[in-house]
Amino acid sequence: MSALGAGAEFDRIRAIAAMLGPRAAELGDDCALVPIDGGFLAISTDVSVDEVHFRRDWLTLTEVGWRAAAAALSDLAAVGADPAGILVALTAPSGLTEQDVVALMDGAGAAASAVGAPVLGGDLSAGATLQLAVTVVGSTGRWLGRGGARAGDGLWVTGALGGARAALLAWQEGREPDPRAREAFARPYPRLAAGQWLAQAGARAMIDLSDGLAGDAAHLAASSGLRMRVELDRVPLHPSIPLDDPHAAVFLAARGGEDYELLAAMSPIFTEREAAAMTSQTGVALTRIGAVEEGEGAQLMLGGTAVTLDSFSHFT
Amino acid sequence: MSALGAGAEFDRIRAIAAMLGPRAAELGDDCALVPIDGGFLAISTDVSVDEVHFRRDWLTLTEVGWRAAAAALSDLAAVGADPAGILVALTAPSGLTEQDVVALMDGAGAAASAVGAPVLGGDLSAGATLQLAVTVVGSTGRWLGRGGARAGDGLWVTGALGGARAALLAWQEGREPDPRAREAFARPYPRLAAGQWLAQAGARAMIDLSDGLAGDAAHLAASSGLRMRVELDRVPLHPSIPLDDPHAAVFLAARGGEDYELLAAMSPIFTEREAAAMTSQTGVALTRIGAVEEGEGAQLMLGGTAVTLDSFSHFT
Repeated sequence: MSALGAGAEFDRIRAIAAMLGPRAAELGDDCALVPIDGGFLAISTDVSVDEVHFRRDWLTLTEVGWRAAAAALSDLAAVGADPAGILVALTAPSGLTEQDVVALMDGAGAAASAVGAPVLGGDLSAGATLQLAVTVVGSTGRWLGRGGARAGDGLWVTGALGGARAALLAWQEGREPDPRAREAFARPYPRLAAGQWLAQAGARAMIDLSDGLAGDAAHLAASSGLRMRVELDRVPLHPSIPLDDPHAAVFLAARGGEDYELLAAMSPIFTEREAAAMTSQTGVALTRIGAVEEGEGAQLMLGGTAVTLDSFSHFT
Repeated sequence: MSALGAGAEFDRIRAIAAMLGPRAAELGDDCALVPIDGGFLAISTDVSVDEVHFRRDWLTLTEVGWRAAAAALSDLAAVGADPAGILVALTAPSGLTEQDVVALMDGAGAAASAVGAPVLGGDLSAGATLQLAVTVVGSTGRWLGRGGARAGDGLWVTGALGGARAALLAWQEGREPDPRAREAFARPYPRLAAGQWLAQAGARAMIDLSDGLAGDAAHLAASSGLRMRVELDRVPLHPSIPLDDPHAAVFLAARGGEDYELLAAMSPIFTEREAAAMTSQTGVALTRIGAVEEGEGAQLMLGGTAVTLDSFSHFT
């Protein structure tokens, strides 16, 4: 959910969400699907807050706008929706100049344009904290959520993982990130085309990787009532991740959030051949990284042995 | 737009919006209408920020939630849409307790329930400033905006005006508002049923009164390329407005924003008889307060004489 979200503040918010009970579902990151003629309307709101989801000394304001819109659009990708447009509600503190507002809107608009979506509207308000609330709307012909995986399905992931976290770790350690890692954090590319392709290819369940592979696999597991077995050796690593310690590299990729890649459960008859077809049609890599099994939770495997992220937390 | 919006801070934001040029339309309060099968999807995002749109020493958090959702839903009313649901993205500072979050969501959910709309989703984020970004979505069979008025149309307004501003003025002067005025500010009732009725009755142009009658009539005028003549003597005054100075009362009602009533341009054949039918079917009063003419701007009339709000600014 949040690049800077680890720690007490975010734990508290999660506790509040849990305490809301039946209302907690309303506060999740899920894309809502509303039945309309011929299918479903897909709609989601995603908030990006200064000093929580980004820092202005890390990113240009154009990048802040792009990233906020891309994060929201990723929710549409996760349900295989065709984007219809975005709305950008900007809260602008008094220090923000005209050029700053234009830069933010340009960035958000560019991310939308990149996936063929117009800016439909928005709101502009004064406020003490810079914040963008981006609403995305789209349509899809079929219901696709987190809960439809079946035992025996393959688990597939788009793109490569860990780039955004590599940049975040560098900034937090006071280093300048690898330019490729910085780009992954600053300009994530929402996987709309891949999401639609996977939905049409019969994806049983799908989620976008905003919390990180391990966390989001656990979300799929909980919603589907099954276990997600992830072979960490198979996880495609972002090229910016240093490979001098292979285990650390793998764990960084598995822990990293906000790559905004897609994790999908596909029928067992979906093979490398279909994956290659997706890549040739969308330009996005698709890698099989595990399988759906009876059981519960996300089961991380490394070299044939079950591991936990906590056991490598000193690396990442 | 903003209860506390008068003054330098808000002028600056308006200047930014104007400076954005072609992008300015994207930042307005309008409800976007997106063509879908059989009609239009109506969608709008509205932000409510602590210390800008409300103060926590004025309202309970349940009222803050209600008011934020009602303000957003009013955008659907203005296009005659049937609401499908709302999304609430809440930014919660660290001082907010679990009970506070529940109260905010309860209030937003109650406003949505009051017009038959479910809470479809949302987002919950940490952040320094309490803020709600409410997205509303609905559908409508016909395009209805601010720009369709024709010369000779009647101008009609729902409900009674000035209650919210009366409460605001009391608070700003350190007085406790009249309970009826406080209710108008804290729990505005979005006019969804009236909006749909007026749309089906052929409304040519419509707007919700968030900036105040004078300002919003000027928006209708600018969009329609015509003059809106408003007979201030006819404006229905909220019962909480003191009548000891009739002129001051009228000007308070004309200046007051955030009543979230509707202003509609109706064909000349729409009469008091049709208005009475609307009232009997929706429970909402409808009053003819003027007419659409050749010309431009909002022309305010009082006792047969053209007046400006500025000439009475010392009252209000």
